[in-house]
Amino acid sequence: MTAQFDSVRAIEWRNDRLYLLDQRILPVSETFIELNDARVTADAIRDMVVRGAPAIGVTAAFGIVLAAREAFAKAGADWKRAIEADLQILAGSRPTAVNLFWAIERMRRVMTDLGASNPEARLLAEAQAIHAEDVAANRTMGELGAALIDPSEAVITHCNTGSLATGGYGTALGVIRSAYAAGRIKKVFADETRPWLQGARLTAWELVKDGIPVDLLADGAGAWRMKNGGISWVIVGSDRIAANGDVANKIGTYHAAVAARYHGVKFMVVAPSSTVDMKTATGADIPIETRSADEVLHIGGRRIAAEGAGAWNPVFDVTPAELVDAIVTERGVVLNPTTEKMRAMMA
Amino acid sequence: MTAQFDSVRAIEWRNDRLYLLDQRILPVSETFIELNDARVTADAIRDMVVRGAPAIGVTAAFGIVLAAREAFAKAGADWKRAIEADLQILAGSRPTAVNLFWAIERMRRVMTDLGASNPEARLLAEAQAIHAEDVAANRTMGELGAALIDPSEAVITHCNTGSLATGGYGTALGVIRSAYAAGRIKKVFADETRPWLQGARLTAWELVKDGIPVDLLADGAGAWRMKNGGISWVIVGSDRIAANGDVANKIGTYHAAVAARYHGVKFMVVAPSSTVDMKTATGADIPIETRSADEVLHIGGRRIAAEGAGAWNPVFDVTPAELVDAIVTERGVVLNPTTEKMRAMMA
Repeated sequence: MTAQFDSVRAIEWRNDRLYLLDQRILPVSETFIELNDARVTADAIRDMVVRGAPAIGVTAAFGIVLAAREAFAKAGADWKRAIEADLQILAGSRPTAVNLFWAIERMRRVMTDLGASNPEARLLAEAQAIHAEDVAANRTMGELGAALIDPSEAVITHCNTGSLATGGYGTALGVIRSAYAAGRIKKVFADETRPWLQGARLTAWELVKDGIPVDLLADGAGAWRMKNGGISWVIVGSDRIAANGDVANKIGTYHAAVAARYHGVKFMVVAPSSTVDMKTATGADIPIETRSADEVLHIGGRRIAAEGAGAWNPVFDVTPAELVDAIVTERGVVLNPTTEKMRAMMA
Repeated sequence: MTAQFDSVRAIEWRNDRLYLLDQRILPVSETFIELNDARVTADAIRDMVVRGAPAIGVTAAFGIVLAAREAFAKAGADWKRAIEADLQILAGSRPTAVNLFWAIERMRRVMTDLGASNPEARLLAEAQAIHAEDVAANRTMGELGAALIDPSEAVITHCNTGSLATGGYGTALGVIRSAYAAGRIKKVFADETRPWLQGARLTAWELVKDGIPVDLLADGAGAWRMKNGGISWVIVGSDRIAANGDVANKIGTYHAAVAARYHGVKFMVVAPSSTVDMKTATGADIPIETRSADEVLHIGGRRIAAEGAGAWNPVFDVTPAELVDAIVTERGVVLNPTTEKMRAMMA
């Protein structure tokens, strides 16, 4: 039903090879990189050819298929020993992405049951299942989230949580696709999302591709946009959700959540249940990575700020559960999250 | 006493000409443009060679000197009729900044008293008085505003309100200069201020010039910075203050004010009394300039967003008086502004 709003795929397996849409050069150029080697796949993850936690997991699974092919060609029946180095290299490509370890672990479990014969076909089937299940989970979340949205003019989103960040369809952007397809919203406002500009470079690109009207906003314009009316929800993804419903996500998310609450705009977080970390009690326990000041002092490789100026550049912030109206996973919806409600969903 | 933190001037009159520091190319190049024509001066205002409400007012006053010179050269005793077109062009260069109209009105009043002889010297004296009074007002505001700041780690500012935005010293940045000189703060966090990046390009440049420590923030990082502690005040300028204390200022100001209130951080607006427009009852009556979507879709002349994406690009927003803890003008300080308090200060 929503196929006309779901045309983008950034990860493809064809001709026995992995193809990744190079997200570093979007939207200037739409170029797929052909990968036939697990180490090159690890490089592609590290160098951000592909980004977004679910997309990294799917990519790593296909990387293991490439690793298995090479290991069997080199070592034959002894392929399980030969593949180990590549698994380590893939696991080290983005050490913070939890979906990466989850996908590698799932592929390892399949490997355990395999014998001495060529493992490629079975591992490919598993990688394709991981990919398909991610898209299916996103479609489920899309329906669950869209059902929360009363017909309204528009929603605001932050960063990129779409087909480019996942196996396809997206998390927050999946909800937005479903809501647009159902006629519940007429357009999307996307924060440009400094310093990396994922909103401007990626979210706008994939919404244009799918024919969903999108206006970009400077990140500081969000509150004024809400004040001007027509915004029903702010809808974002997450990198980690604590047991009490505190949400770590791209820097700027908390700024948007504070403004949403002030204006009576609701705030929705959309993420697969693998993002929920019940071992982390609250957001205070989530380590926040700080990256180089150069990302703020430069844009597109060009320095914009005076020499001598510093910058404060945390990659993520934490939005407290009390500012979150709904957490949507493929397992269901939690309204006004608490530890008890999160535990019930994850049980 | 604070001279060591006041080394920057962007508007100079010398050799019978107006010189403007070209703020479009800072901090890469420090280049003054020579102006000898009122229409070119209006273009310079429109094209943002000079920006910042007080600086625009000072520039327009000097532009009228150039207009008067040309009008007298062309029309002699009939110069008042000949100058009218240029006054209209200057008045139309930017719509929101009330200082522009205030400066033109003040120059007009001087013109009224002049006869058929060459008006240039008298008008130049008035323009220079406007310039000098602006710097003096900024120093007064600096002292008044700094006195409100309890010793603390840092403040946050937005856009550029410094020597580049005024005749010199600055409004909000003047308070910050005075507070730093008095040892009341140790550093400044400056929003980068998309889409024009005045914080990154201008505020960081002039603070570095004057040896005041500055860290830039992505605009969406403000709330998270407040949450992390050490911020006593958000201090901003204004393009127009309504009679009730509502404040129009650079887009992103309102978002910062909402976040400040949520975190118990105080919010100070610093502007000369010429910015206060008692004929405008509330912020709802202030016209808000919307500029081209291209400013959001591009950075530094390079397109960053996909073709087909739109952008919402209001230049200013309005912060309601109830979010403002202090308005500082050269006439005094108004805490928790109301129409009655504003009227008393402006009487």
